[in-house]
Order: sequence, then structure tokens, then C-alpha cells
Amino acid sequence: MTNNPLYKEYKQILQKAADLNNAAAVLGWDQEVYMPPKGAYFRGRQLATLASQAHELLTGERLGHLLDQLKFANDLNPTEQANVLRSFEDYSKNRKLSAEFVEELSMQTSACFNAWIEARRANDFSKFAPSLEKMVALKRKQAEMYQYESHPYDALLDEYEPGIRVATLDQVFNGIKTELPVILSKIKAAKQVDDSFFYRHYPKQLQWDFSMTVLKAMGYDLEAGRQDLSEHPFTTSFAPTDVRVTTRVSEDNYASLLWSTIHEGGHALYEQGMPEDEYGMPCGAAASLGIHESQSRLWENCIGRGADFWNHFFPVLKEHFPSQLSDVTANGFFKATNKVEPSFIRTEADEITYHFHVLIRYEIEKALIEGKIEVKDLPAKWNELYTHYLGITPADDVTGVLQDAHWSHGSFGYFPTYTLGSFYASQFYAHAQKAIPTLDSDIAAGQTAELLSWLRKNIHVHGRRYTSEELCELVTGERLNTGYFLNYARKKYSAVYNIDL
Amino acid sequence: MTNNPLYKEYKQILQKAADLNNAAAVLGWDQEVYMPPKGAYFRGRQLATLASQAHELLTGERLGHLLDQLKFANDLNPTEQANVLRSFEDYSKNRKLSAEFVEELSMQTSACFNAWIEARRANDFSKFAPSLEKMVALKRKQAEMYQYESHPYDALLDEYEPGIRVATLDQVFNGIKTELPVILSKIKAAKQVDDSFFYRHYPKQLQWDFSMTVLKAMGYDLEAGRQDLSEHPFTTSFAPTDVRVTTRVSEDNYASLLWSTIHEGGHALYEQGMPEDEYGMPCGAAASLGIHESQSRLWENCIGRGADFWNHFFPVLKEHFPSQLSDVTANGFFKATNKVEPSFIRTEADEITYHFHVLIRYEIEKALIEGKIEVKDLPAKWNELYTHYLGITPADDVTGVLQDAHWSHGSFGYFPTYTLGSFYASQFYAHAQKAIPTLDSDIAAGQTAELLSWLRKNIHVHGRRYTSEELCELVTGERLNTGYFLNYARKKYSAVYNIDL
Repeated sequence: MTNNPLYKEYKQILQKAADLNNAAAVLGWDQEVYMPPKGAYFRGRQLATLASQAHELLTGERLGHLLDQLKFANDLNPTEQANVLRSFEDYSKNRKLSAEFVEELSMQTSACFNAWIEARRANDFSKFAPSLEKMVALKRKQAEMYQYESHPYDALLDEYEPGIRVATLDQVFNGIKTELPVILSKIKAAKQVDDSFFYRHYPKQLQWDFSMTVLKAMGYDLEAGRQDLSEHPFTTSFAPTDVRVTTRVSEDNYASLLWSTIHEGGHALYEQGMPEDEYGMPCGAAASLGIHESQSRLWENCIGRGADFWNHFFPVLKEHFPSQLSDVTANGFFKATNKVEPSFIRTEADEITYHFHVLIRYEIEKALIEGKIEVKDLPAKWNELYTHYLGITPADDVTGVLQDAHWSHGSFGYFPTYTLGSFYASQFYAHAQKAIPTLDSDIAAGQTAELLSWLRKNIHVHGRRYTSEELCELVTGERLNTGYFLNYARKKYSAVYNIDL
Repeated sequence: MTNNPLYKEYKQILQKAADLNNAAAVLGWDQEVYMPPKGAYFRGRQLATLASQAHELLTGERLGHLLDQLKFANDLNPTEQANVLRSFEDYSKNRKLSAEFVEELSMQTSACFNAWIEARRANDFSKFAPSLEKMVALKRKQAEMYQYESHPYDALLDEYEPGIRVATLDQVFNGIKTELPVILSKIKAAKQVDDSFFYRHYPKQLQWDFSMTVLKAMGYDLEAGRQDLSEHPFTTSFAPTDVRVTTRVSEDNYASLLWSTIHEGGHALYEQGMPEDEYGMPCGAAASLGIHESQSRLWENCIGRGADFWNHFFPVLKEHFPSQLSDVTANGFFKATNKVEPSFIRTEADEITYHFHVLIRYEIEKALIEGKIEVKDLPAKWNELYTHYLGITPADDVTGVLQDAHWSHGSFGYFPTYTLGSFYASQFYAHAQKAIPTLDSDIAAGQTAELLSWLRKNIHVHGRRYTSEELCELVTGERLNTGYFLNYARKKYSAVYNIDL
């Protein structure tokens, strides 16, 4: 570690800001998990103050001055150099937003989230619309403040997936539009999979118990985390030593909880794998949301929806639910977990139709930020796109446009990272299989420790040292290649549907 | 409300600091209720940063400058004037501590609390001692920084009960030492009360349910609060609209949960009664810990341990526990709730011996801060004083010197406010009975709404506008008069023990 006093001062500023942001994360977690309803207004104030205090530290003249000097320091090790480089990029970006704007955005985020909760309760988008309109206006303003070359949405994307552009995403989604419908139509023509047993009655506590068993088996450290219930499942980190997941339970739909737990568990393993020494520093933070999502999807899909995984876990599951699963085999369970069928709720979609859910949100967001559509038209636009891409039309707002919390959080530009994450996941997983020749049989024996240590060593430990594209190249020898996902999908669904893809 | 721009700026600074302190309260709540064990270290950092950021705001030159001018402003209403006056006192006090000291104290508080948890688990004071030694050294340093006239402990008392001095407390406790042993010996000579039914098996969930019924009946707004479990029950407020209580449950000791819930409920009603408009301002904060405790004790003792209260609630309780209470009458229950008997655990002590528990802590704290005893001698000193005052000797550390979290929080000077609170409670309650002639029969009918509104109007609404002594005079026409407590005790225990006190 360097003795450079400027580096030490820089680190102190970043870690203080991290303390404030992590405190805000605790307040955010509490808001969605335990806060009583009347607490909302002052909680909004408190979050806004934390955001503005952190912003003040991260945009102060002093930090800029330190970074200007540290860029040319010759006594920093490679990690320290990477931190300085990333911080310089962040600083330049942060300076573009005023403290007032950051506070306003934070206040509006709390208000908007509460409006979304209310609107969901009432199953009525119009209760959410006024608050969302203000949010969209703020995000458009934010894009202008950030500046951009060709599309205002690019400026927002940069917050979640640095470097990605509308031009690239359009290409990725065009691939989806041409390749996935072919796979989908072949699946539709095949003999359908029976997953009706998922909708039997599964008592809440037993579902919870099995989800905890799976989290532990994945290597999630429960001394450094916990699982709670919330409206919408999420993962949040206050430090690598306190990373929390949430889930939701439906007694009449077992699939609702199970993969949400594995998915969030994957996110949580990434956060628990961040180097503690780099707390608050770029090298102690996730590379991008796409990379984050690659970790959750790798666990959820490549592992948790794989035949090998259920080879080990199906007998354990059956011990929890002997009557509900009496007529189900491990192979039948594996097939059911991979049933492909257009449906309304993104988080419960299969791995093929999922990307149409993302595509729909991507198209809506782009148009909203460009000002080509208005908030009041969202329910109609939403239903039109679902009918167009998936051939189904949501019957109400909760099943349609009100299903995700993201817009209430102002997270425009977030959705595309889900699709990027899936594609990165397939690419990483293919290389993990090469690196660990026994991986498939390990998983069939319920052993994922070696995989986790491969992920820790090749991905987690780097934090934000590399961009997602650099990291992908480092780990796999090439940039994002959608061929991996298509290969993975063809192989899996050939097995599930006994067809030739 | 004033248009004075300086007042607005002053209010903004105070409210920002309140946001940071309330965020710290959320982190503190989480730390004791839900945080996984490995989260402790970084949580300590985060709390320290929040404390130092708030301290920075509250000791900044700008605030001092604003207060200097606002002291002479002639366009402020009485509430605004009171805020400025209290803030000026606070500012002068806050400026005496350096930012480094505040941060060090906050870090040490987290470390010390965790050491206390560990030591309790191991039932071994020596695991707590090194951390507590550092804490005592910091508190002695703090007393020096605050300055004082006659006793260093005075400087620490001021944080919890502004204006109170060792000289006054010595008088109060001398009263206890002379009067209470007389009452205690008469009770000892009387026919003893049977409370053995408290130690039957009371299922956790049913205890919890009844405690929620009582909280609701007291007027605690569950839309603006919640109850959780923790090692040591406490109340915490993040705003008047989010005030939380915790409790603990022992299935073999019903008394453990019941009065802790009513006690914390009394604290919570005070916090929920703070004027929202004065969020973050002195007039939106509790007058003192003694006054805070007067509210919890009034509910716990004057009401919750009264015959009238159980006239209404005993039948409800019996519905929850028909078998456990089959041989118990309402009057028998009332008597059992007021059984007097020297015991080891302060929070479970009766209303008479309780004050010896406080006296013992008071004597130890004074001596520690004066440097007359050392941390390593505490277990021996503790046991010696218990033997002297209560005639009983704790068998181990958990039953003795490790029972309270207070010292781990650095809260030296806090304990005496418990006794002050009891005495204020009796005095306030006597005046509430005068002001509401139907109060006894209201309570016997399960109605406490009028009492709550009397407390709101006469005590809660004022916040810190008055010192505790001024407030007492305003509400009751006289300063603290221990005669009220002695009258209350003589009346109650004459009834409980059928003796003439």
C-alpha cells in the first residue's frame, strides 16, 4: 500500500462518501422491508440529505485537486492506479449534476416509490402517473446535464453499464428479434411441458426453509447477510460483510420464490466477494449492472435451472414437500423449471420470452426519454407491445405496466442490463466449464464451491478495475458474443422439448 | 412562521443534522435488531461518519454566526425564540468537542457494544473490560472537554438531564436511602404475594399478540411505528411518524415481556407526540431523559401496574391464556404485578427495589468518572453493593454487572434519569387525576385516550421548549417533589400487602 499522503486523503473522502451511501442503502432496505407507512415522508428527506452529503464529498474541489495530482503519481500500485482512473471518470461525471438536482432527484425517488406502492395496491396506473411524469422530466434533465453524442438515453445507460450505447443495444435486440422467434416457434410446435405442480399449495414456512438451504449451499454467508420479505425481491450491500437479499412468497406458486432466491443469492455472492480492503473504492465495487446481472443469472439459469442442480436438490426438495411432489420426477421437475410460455410478469418469465419483456421496456424508455411518448400513454403502449411481441395482452395495470419498481426509482437505462447479464452469464459459464472439467458432475453432487472460487478469482476480486467489456475479454478471450447464449439456449431447450434446435 | 431568512437557514442546518442523526438511529436500530454479526465493523465506520458529519453541521462557524444574530431578532414567534435559545446552548456545548473526538467516541461505541454482546454470550465480564476501559477513558476526557464546576460527572449528566447536578442527585438518593428501607421492611414483614403463575409456560406468539393489543389500546400508532425483538428492549425515533419499540420474550417468564412493552410504548407515545412541524428543532425533541422516562413509567407503573388497568385487561389476557391463568383473579393478578422482592435484574425489578438498582449504578459511575475505582474491579464492586443495599449477591456476570447495555453505549449519567423519571411520573399522574376526574374509571373501562390527550397537550407538545424542572413546575405548579412518589408507593403497597404504610 502506498504512503502517498494524497492517496490517503483521497481514500478517506471516498470511504466517507461510501459510509453515507451505505447508510442510505440501509434506509432504503428498511423502507422496502420494515418501515411503517407513515414513515415515508421524513425517510424521503433523510435519504435526500444523505445523497446530497455524499454528492458534496464526491464533487468537492478538494477531491478534484487530489485526483488531478494522483493521475501523475508514480508511487501507486496497479490497484491504486485503477482506483484513481475510475474516480477521475466518476468525478467528471458527478460534477455535471448540481447538489440541488441530486437532492431533488432523491426526494422524488422516495415520493415516486411510494406512489408506485399505492398505485399497485389500487391496481391503477393513474395514481402513479403524476409522480412518474415528474421523474421522467428529471431524468430527461439529467441526460442533458450529463451530455451525450447521439442519443439522450446513452447518457442514462452510462450510469448502469458504462460505455454501452443505444447503437450497440439496438444490434443486440435486433439479434433477439430475428433468432429468438425461430426458437420460440419450434418450442410452441413441440409437445408442451407440464408444470402444473408448481401451483399446488406450498406452505410459506417450508418454502422459506428450502430457500435458506439453497442459499447456504450456494456459499452465501449468512453471518454476513440475511434474507427478508419485500414487495419486489432485491439485493443490497452495506459492505462485503453485510449483504442482504429479499424475496417474496406465494403459497400457490412455488416458482415465484425459488428462482428469485437463487437469483438474488447470485447477486449477493458477487457483493460478498468484493475485497474488504477496497471498501468504498472503485476496486471494491461491482463492475457494472450487466456484470452484476451475469452473476445472478449464472446462478439462477445456468445452474439453478439445470438438470445437474436438481439431480442433487430434487430429493432434498421432495423431503420438504412429499405430497406436493409425489408424482414428480427429477427430470420432470427440470423440464417444468424450463417451461417456455409467453406470460405477463417479467420476473417470472422463462429464459427465452424474458428478453422480449426487456425489449419492450427498452423501447418504451428510449421513447420516453426522447420525448416521443408521454407517461399517460404508457398503459396503452405497454399492452400494444405485449400483444405485438408476445401475443398476449395484460388485463390490468398490476399485471402490466405497474409490475416493476424500476421507474419509480428513476432507473431508466437499467432494464437492458438484464439481457446483457444473461448473455454474459452464458459466456462466463461456458468458460467456467472449460476451466473446471468436473463442474457438471460437481453440481450434480451439490458442490458449487469450486465454481464460486473461480468466480471470486476471475470476476469478483477485480471490482470495477475493468469495464464490463474489458472484463469479458479478460475472462473469456473475446468481447460479448451472443452466440454463447444462443448455443446455451438451443442445447437446453432441445433437451427440455425433445426437439432439434 | 417567520420570514426571517437567517432563521430559515438555521432551520435548514438543524434539519439536515437531524436527517443524519435519524439515519444513524435507523442504523443503530438495525444493528440491535437485524444486522448479521459480521456487519459490525463497517457499521461502526458508517455510524462514526454520520456522527461526524452531523457534528460538523452543528459546530460550523456558519451556525454560530446565525445564532449570534438570531438571539437578537425581533420577528420570531415564541417557538422560534425557544428553538434559538436551546440551539445556542447546544452549540456552545457541541463546540467543546472536536470532530475527531466525536468520531472516535462513535467508533468506540460500536466496538464496545459488540464486546458487550460477546461478553454476555460468554457470561464473562473480562471480555468486555478492555473495551469498557477505553470507553471510560473517553468519557472522562469528554467531561474535561465540557468543563464543570464541582464534579466531572455533572458534565456528563448534562447530556441527559440538563441542569441536574451531583449535589441534587445525592439528596434524591439520600431520600431513597432513608425512606424506602422503611417501606421495604414493612412489606417484608407482611404476608407475601404469590406471583408463581408468571413463570408458567406462555407461548411466544400469544405473548406477542397480547402485547400488540396493549400497544394499540394505549394509542400507539402502528402506522407510524412497529415492534421488534432485541436483546435489550428500547425505543427509537426516526421522526414522529416512525417511532419503533423493541421487546424481548421469555416463554417461562411472562412479566419479562409485558411491562417492557408498556414501558417502551410510553416512550413511543411521547416521540409520536412531537410536533411534526418542528422536526429536527429543539421544540420537536424530548425535554430530557428524565421527562422521557416519566412518560414510560407513568404508563408502565401508574397505569400498567394499577388495579384499574387490569380490571379491563385481565379478562382479555385470560382469553389469550385460559389454562395458565385459570386459578388467577384480576385482583390476584394486580397484586402479583406489584410483588416487591429484591432481585438481580434492574429491568424486572419492582417499583421499590428498582431505585436501589439505580443507586448502585449511580455510585459506580460517579466513582469511575472520578477515577476512584477501576473497570477491572467492577464485578466485585457491583456484587458488594448488591449485597449491601439489597441483601443479595449475583452469581455471575450476566445476572450482575453485564446486564445493561448503557455503559457499552458510553451512556454514563443516564441511569439517574430512571429514578427522576419515576418521581416525575408520580407527580404528573397525580395532576392528571385532578385534571381528569373520571380518569380512574376511564382506565377501568380500558379508555386512555383522554389521558393521552392530556399528556400530549401538557407535556409532549412542548418538546424541549422548557427544561425538565420548568416543565414540571408548569404542569404541576411545583418543582420535583419526591413526596408524590412516596404517597403513590404507600397507597399502592398498602393495598397490595394489606398493610398500613
